[in-house]
Amino acid sequence: MSNQRTEISSLGEFGLIDHVTKNIELQNASSIVGVGDDGAVIDHFGKQTVISTDLLVEGVHFDLIYTPLKHLGYKSVIANISDIYAMNATPTQLVISLGLSNRFSVEAVDELYEGIYAACEKYGVDLVGGDTTSSQKGLIISITAIGEVTPDTFVKRSTAQKGDLICVSGDLGAAYIGLLFLEREKKIYLESPGVQPDLEGEAYVVGRLLKPEARKDIIEFLAAQKIQPTSMMDISDGLSSEILHICKQSELGCVLYEEKIPIAEATKQAAFKFELDPTACALSGGEDYELLFTIPQAEYDKLVLNEQISVVGYMTDAEQGAQLFTKGGSKYPITAQGWNHMKE
Amino acid sequence: MSNQRTEISSLGEFGLIDHVTKNIELQNASSIVGVGDDGAVIDHFGKQTVISTDLLVEGVHFDLIYTPLKHLGYKSVIANISDIYAMNATPTQLVISLGLSNRFSVEAVDELYEGIYAACEKYGVDLVGGDTTSSQKGLIISITAIGEVTPDTFVKRSTAQKGDLICVSGDLGAAYIGLLFLEREKKIYLESPGVQPDLEGEAYVVGRLLKPEARKDIIEFLAAQKIQPTSMMDISDGLSSEILHICKQSELGCVLYEEKIPIAEATKQAAFKFELDPTACALSGGEDYELLFTIPQAEYDKLVLNEQISVVGYMTDAEQGAQLFTKGGSKYPITAQGWNHMKE
Repeated sequence: MSNQRTEISSLGEFGLIDHVTKNIELQNASSIVGVGDDGAVIDHFGKQTVISTDLLVEGVHFDLIYTPLKHLGYKSVIANISDIYAMNATPTQLVISLGLSNRFSVEAVDELYEGIYAACEKYGVDLVGGDTTSSQKGLIISITAIGEVTPDTFVKRSTAQKGDLICVSGDLGAAYIGLLFLEREKKIYLESPGVQPDLEGEAYVVGRLLKPEARKDIIEFLAAQKIQPTSMMDISDGLSSEILHICKQSELGCVLYEEKIPIAEATKQAAFKFELDPTACALSGGEDYELLFTIPQAEYDKLVLNEQISVVGYMTDAEQGAQLFTKGGSKYPITAQGWNHMKE
Repeated sequence: MSNQRTEISSLGEFGLIDHVTKNIELQNASSIVGVGDDGAVIDHFGKQTVISTDLLVEGVHFDLIYTPLKHLGYKSVIANISDIYAMNATPTQLVISLGLSNRFSVEAVDELYEGIYAACEKYGVDLVGGDTTSSQKGLIISITAIGEVTPDTFVKRSTAQKGDLICVSGDLGAAYIGLLFLEREKKIYLESPGVQPDLEGEAYVVGRLLKPEARKDIIEFLAAQKIQPTSMMDISDGLSSEILHICKQSELGCVLYEEKIPIAEATKQAAFKFELDPTACALSGGEDYELLFTIPQAEYDKLVLNEQISVVGYMTDAEQGAQLFTKGGSKYPITAQGWNHMKE
């Protein structure tokens, strides 16, 4: 953070909005009217519009002790546009509201927006509106992402079919281990402020937590291969919780194979340092922002082209429940608290 | 508030969302996918989409000592859809996020949603998504409203023309006086908890504060009369502040006539009890949610049909600044702090 401190009150609400939005250049033809009016105007020209929203509260969703504001801004955008990709849509616009306690300076807000704009630029999204206000305590970030989708090609959670293959992008569990490392170092720091954080070798897991990416590439791959997933969602609360949503909303059961769940080598090594089972971290650790989707078995051949997609199981009748087949040959029922369950 | 208290933790986040959304029936053909997925899907079938967002924080935007939760829910929706009308558009969908401290019970959340749904029903808007989370302190409400507009009939703030008539709907200043009454009664209550609030005769101004309405009727009237305003916005921060936005963004000046500013008789009487100038309240008091718009002079005859619209002045060259012609024949420059200025 810069050493200069400019009070937000010196700009006022409208001044602050002007300050953080003055360099916006709209990238999308669909962004007709941007920041600066009662509302933004969007024209998706025959496509359907997808809307997703998140509310992030300091002390609940993020800890500024180990989260740089620029990363927080970036991640806030990623978490939201990940939901748009999870509908098989392309994010096009964002509106962002901030609630700021008087602890925050103009320079701090600038850092936050630096991350927001970096994510917008990378993913081709326009910031078209928002609201800026005070908060009595801490930082509040509310983001609504808007996307577009060719009519009726959006993908819901409730339309998986029996026998469909369950697929996962990337690898899982890393963000959770990254969080454990940062929480450990925070504790050490608070007890002995002189000690430097020891994150050596943990760049991968910490990076996955602090600077996640959204799986634009997977949506583009599926479109290029003409694969229409039968259901899809993003993995923000852990694989267990998410596959249970798909099972419940599709009125089906599932089988997951532990050995098929993608976990990075760095995640495994880091998990062992905490004496944790990497599979448990993948099942119950949140914030990976990977995609979970189902496809008809007939589409399997098209997937092998993409190393970023793992087939981890298949959908069954509801009566069979949601089951994990372990490497050791056992069967466990999958629960939303899979991690705690498996520790017992 | 009901006497029963059910802890939110007994339902959990997903349980709470199910609980408050289980009776939703989508009213608009444009609402393709509602609550329960990563995002909502909307199809405005050839129309353009308008988006507006507000962040409301307890202790900053509302005081639960004198704001019933049902009224707060209603007003939160009104404040947001008022912005959609102010774009000359029709609100069609909402997404709402709540941040709740552990002070709030399921019953309290139900009351809040009762007001939200009442406003949605009255204005024909579908609740299609949201986020529910904890807050460390107080209640946080984030609302994003989505509307539709026939392509290129939206109305911005920046397109007023020199000579255009400045129009205001309804009457102004009441909500501000209502706030002064409630603040006074709160102070008395906190000093002497036994004393009952004395709001006799102030139903109008208090009602305007606690249960405002959005001017759907004005937008419908303008459409029926084929009047396309040259600029428009809603009056949430007082007439002075809003007309200055139109002047600045349209690069023009204006003349307002004090005697033309619509103020209800009840507002005048109430203002006098506080020894305030009713005009100052209309210029600087917020939260009236009336519409401020400009029209070409040639459209004037069409307006006389509508008693809910007052012509309060006209747009001038920027060089002439923004001026108020008082009843006494004086001229004052209009400032965003008009109320303080005029008290001097």
